[in-house]
Amino acid sequence: MSNKIGNGTIIFDNPIYIIAYASVGSKKEGDGPLAGYVDFLCDDTTFGEKTWEKAESRIQKHAVEKSLLKADISVKDIDFIIAGDLLNQCIGSIYGSKDMDLPFIGLYGACSTMAESLAIGSVFLTNDSFENICCVTSSHFCSAERQFRFPLEYGGQRTPTSQWTVTGGGSVILSNNPKDIEKGIVIKAIKIGKIKDLGIKDSNNMGAAMAPSAAYTIKEYLNDTLTKPSDYDLILTGDLGEVGSDLLKKLLERENIDISKNHNDCGLMVYDIDKQDVNAGGSGCGCSAITLTSYIFKKMEEGIYKNVLFIGTGALLSTTSVQQGDTIPGISHLIHICKTNFIV
Amino acid sequence: MSNKIGNGTIIFDNPIYIIAYASVGSKKEGDGPLAGYVDFLCDDTTFGEKTWEKAESRIQKHAVEKSLLKADISVKDIDFIIAGDLLNQCIGSIYGSKDMDLPFIGLYGACSTMAESLAIGSVFLTNDSFENICCVTSSHFCSAERQFRFPLEYGGQRTPTSQWTVTGGGSVILSNNPKDIEKGIVIKAIKIGKIKDLGIKDSNNMGAAMAPSAAYTIKEYLNDTLTKPSDYDLILTGDLGEVGSDLLKKLLERENIDISKNHNDCGLMVYDIDKQDVNAGGSGCGCSAITLTSYIFKKMEEGIYKNVLFIGTGALLSTTSVQQGDTIPGISHLIHICKTNFIV
Repeated sequence: MSNKIGNGTIIFDNPIYIIAYASVGSKKEGDGPLAGYVDFLCDDTTFGEKTWEKAESRIQKHAVEKSLLKADISVKDIDFIIAGDLLNQCIGSIYGSKDMDLPFIGLYGACSTMAESLAIGSVFLTNDSFENICCVTSSHFCSAERQFRFPLEYGGQRTPTSQWTVTGGGSVILSNNPKDIEKGIVIKAIKIGKIKDLGIKDSNNMGAAMAPSAAYTIKEYLNDTLTKPSDYDLILTGDLGEVGSDLLKKLLERENIDISKNHNDCGLMVYDIDKQDVNAGGSGCGCSAITLTSYIFKKMEEGIYKNVLFIGTGALLSTTSVQQGDTIPGISHLIHICKTNFIV
Repeated sequence: MSNKIGNGTIIFDNPIYIIAYASVGSKKEGDGPLAGYVDFLCDDTTFGEKTWEKAESRIQKHAVEKSLLKADISVKDIDFIIAGDLLNQCIGSIYGSKDMDLPFIGLYGACSTMAESLAIGSVFLTNDSFENICCVTSSHFCSAERQFRFPLEYGGQRTPTSQWTVTGGGSVILSNNPKDIEKGIVIKAIKIGKIKDLGIKDSNNMGAAMAPSAAYTIKEYLNDTLTKPSDYDLILTGDLGEVGSDLLKKLLERENIDISKNHNDCGLMVYDIDKQDVNAGGSGCGCSAITLTSYIFKKMEEGIYKNVLFIGTGALLSTTSVQQGDTIPGISHLIHICKTNFIV
């Protein structure tokens, strides 16, 4: 069924199949380097809705519907939808899923949600009672700014370490039934992360807050599996951005782990950070979701990447905790994704 | 392993053991009818902390530590901690769990979180790779009022349909290893609920917002299992309160399902609603958590209840969605709990 080998690490005896995936983005994502890989780009950041929050729900709906189409299955074939987002009480997910008539599992994992949902979905699918699970998440620049920082109308200056919340999302259909094994990609293992807190208090420097948890998860996974960074084509973090990525590499160097040759970060891939005025890079639940469900999975299908460690990174703060002077803990969950014919 | 029989309903071939549980409450809970069953009552609602939010984290810590003690196991024996709460970005859970050094799964299910965590923990434990999982949740009257309604200092009047958020929480240790089968209680089945929305917009009437989802989950579970209300000693909803409980019974009557003889609601059990000035009853994630992990589980151990349907009820709103004129959807997850020697 599956073979646990470490604290939170699970290697699946039978791989979990990624049978379909879909990505949604908006104007800025369409101006970025991944544009050609995104399924649905809407230049209008309202997505035809009256509020940013409703626009975010619409992103999730679009992503789920498109992924179901690509999987050539209907909503009735899905056992559960697993969703979460950054908004207070996860309203992006709740109003996005409420009309889908599916058993709903709500998560909160901040920007690690894409990885958290894939991890939980994968563990559920080690149980033969289930067959297909839909994992979805999103973020929206405007809803996130309003909630976590300032109203857009205020025109607040952004610090160099700040990141740009992605307006977009992604949906992944997982299955334990190998419907399309030839071109398919699978989840071979996961690691559920621990909360790590090195005392960062600057809510404009999320990369630094998340880097320690990413370093912990990567180091422990390599230990658990007796592998080294060069065993993977790509070690992909969620949204550390420029500052957090540098810190991650430094933290791992101290442990004699060198990921500099094959590390990349969704926050550095989703935008052209030299040209798009996003400071330290992209962020938000939608950042890793859109990157994974557009460019990364496509390149895996093509065989460009065969063996990827995806580490969803989350900064666990609220405006309340920041205002009360609390530190910002981070959490990072790992998904080991392989090209099917590579591991079979 | 387990036998799925309906949309979201799972009956476990091997029961999931509740090997320990612990409850925490404060002054008002200590003045209520369950006082004699609660493990830790602290008259000081700050629990020695500087803010209400930190007090809520402290509640979760106390509950987890006490449940580990009662299970006679250490943190190292726990595979995962599954936690969630009502606060923005679930900071009650995050700051409650951050020093526990455990793989952390964050949930958002509003007041259904105790049931959601038990459901996810149970499904995880159908996988033999895991052995023990800790499920915990909490709420705090003062942190909830500040976030969802008005600052306490404002002295706002409360409507008759409003409910009183429980200051408390509960922790449950689940295991697939029958350590103490003689006196033990087990989870026999679960049902993950769907989001239901009948258009309620009054955020002071959560009971009405949640009743439709509870009715749906109960009706479908009875259908799925070909059972009737009289097959159970108790059909226990989470926090519908007086208004929601009446609505639930009426909604089910329309479907020719009569639960009036064996229904009760944690929101009506945790306080003496005639004497304690709580209007329509208790509410919050802590409401079902404290009731389940004090009186209910104790009475099951004693054999008073042998067969209980616990339906965690959640109102999926945020202040943002309410201010934008949105309806309040509800979700209800069901846990079928049995006295061990009854089902073995």
